[in-house]
Amino acid sequence: MARVFDRIALLGIGLIGASLARVIRREGLAGEIVVYTRRAETLAKAEALGLGDRYTLDAAEAAAGADLVMLCTPLGAYRALVEAIAPRLVPGAIVSDVGSVKGSVIREIGPLVPAGVHLVPGHPVSGTEHSGPEAGFATLFEGRWCILTPPPGTDPAAVERIAGLWRRAGMMIELMDAAYHDRVLAITSHLPHLIAYSIVDTVVGLERSTRREVVKYAAGGFRDFTRIAASDPVMWRDIFLDNQEAVLEMLGRFSEDLARLQRAIRHGDGEVLEELFTRTRAIRRGVIEAKQA
Amino acid sequence: MARVFDRIALLGIGLIGASLARVIRREGLAGEIVVYTRRAETLAKAEALGLGDRYTLDAAEAAAGADLVMLCTPLGAYRALVEAIAPRLVPGAIVSDVGSVKGSVIREIGPLVPAGVHLVPGHPVSGTEHSGPEAGFATLFEGRWCILTPPPGTDPAAVERIAGLWRRAGMMIELMDAAYHDRVLAITSHLPHLIAYSIVDTVVGLERSTRREVVKYAAGGFRDFTRIAASDPVMWRDIFLDNQEAVLEMLGRFSEDLARLQRAIRHGDGEVLEELFTRTRAIRRGVIEAKQA
Repeated sequence: MARVFDRIALLGIGLIGASLARVIRREGLAGEIVVYTRRAETLAKAEALGLGDRYTLDAAEAAAGADLVMLCTPLGAYRALVEAIAPRLVPGAIVSDVGSVKGSVIREIGPLVPAGVHLVPGHPVSGTEHSGPEAGFATLFEGRWCILTPPPGTDPAAVERIAGLWRRAGMMIELMDAAYHDRVLAITSHLPHLIAYSIVDTVVGLERSTRREVVKYAAGGFRDFTRIAASDPVMWRDIFLDNQEAVLEMLGRFSEDLARLQRAIRHGDGEVLEELFTRTRAIRRGVIEAKQA
Repeated sequence: MARVFDRIALLGIGLIGASLARVIRREGLAGEIVVYTRRAETLAKAEALGLGDRYTLDAAEAAAGADLVMLCTPLGAYRALVEAIAPRLVPGAIVSDVGSVKGSVIREIGPLVPAGVHLVPGHPVSGTEHSGPEAGFATLFEGRWCILTPPPGTDPAAVERIAGLWRRAGMMIELMDAAYHDRVLAITSHLPHLIAYSIVDTVVGLERSTRREVVKYAAGGFRDFTRIAASDPVMWRDIFLDNQEAVLEMLGRFSEDLARLQRAIRHGDGEVLEELFTRTRAIRRGVIEAKQA
């Protein structure tokens, strides 16, 4: 139960922040956990759940004197937060985050982090469709990958401290270039969410009677899409805005592939369909073998 | 344990046929279960699992003297099967099925069913991504909906016998017009499968190194798509060929909606994204309230 940090400031206390707070507590990783969030109502929930040692609606106060500041808000809030906390960051402190896009984090907040403070962007690839502090649980990260994307020249000791934190959460660590991360996540996560949101919205657009039937017979495949499309709206808005380029590229590829299937259906070309449906099974086997199923 | 049928012939013994066989046995619904399938290897598996009382590679022999013939093969096999068994069907017998498209069933095999034999098309809306007789289990149908689409003029007593069978499997029964069924299922099931197959195929088309990373980080949403896209290729080929019109219509609506999201991302229009992502949450609540989550 070796303490890794004296004071960890969690800025944002949703699903990920709350889950991390529980890990930090369970593993005894910090002398003190300070919780900041924007809304008093959410902060009260976090306090009721006992997620921190101290609670504040002032981000700068939370970050003051912390040796780790972990950004756990939607991406769109990062810039203003880092501007607010920068004057209170102490030399040697680490600023890290859990956001699903990494290139924009380095571009946007990299220049705002004071000299002597380390920026180690990270992304624990795990989650559920639930949000808010009450959705957090300590085993969320177990057996999943955490991708760290330190910019060139980052102090290896700072990277290793963040890696150690996530290892204690049960995660496997991967170091990656931020741009490559954003491309991989565009297809594994961002595009699937976009498509799920879109098809659920198509259902919203159907006449009321059909919509009711759709919900009733969701067991046929649609229910998986509704689960994905129930994820936090603001978090996902920011992901798409921040990873615009990679998402649009993957969306272009997907649209081409879908058009090919559409054409095969229109022309009754069973061979194209069967061949493609057979090919995709191998990817599922890969996911199962990688123990991510 | 009242017997409902003297002899049930199951033509096809994949996930659905095998699950139904287990229900029939558990509930004592038939005096005899006769299993037919096209491939000797599959028949041997069914026999090893003890799914029937009699096993044959001759569909006409299986159907001879049965008071219920249940088609459990992919849709594309129906026509040839019904042509083969028609001469051996006894007056008063019921021909039913479990296919995911209903209009084509009535159009294709309706005219082949002899006078005095009842056609009661059905669709138990349940399944998993696994296939084959070994994938079957008796609780597959519990709490799900079974949609029956008897053509106008069908003997209500025959419909009620099929409804009774599925109720004993734990299903709730809904009567519906075949064309309406096909439209509802196009959006709840067929389009989600098509999209899942398509996005997994997009991944297949990526360069090998990226493909490996995608599998590794599948936890972000992609893994749900790979599960859906692992479903039986021949069954799904036939569904798309048979429900061409409704699938193309729903695909058109989906493509329009996706294009709108694409445009919002390209123009950085966060309001459109957040508003849409918020709206889709209500549908998830509907699915949960309908106990289909």
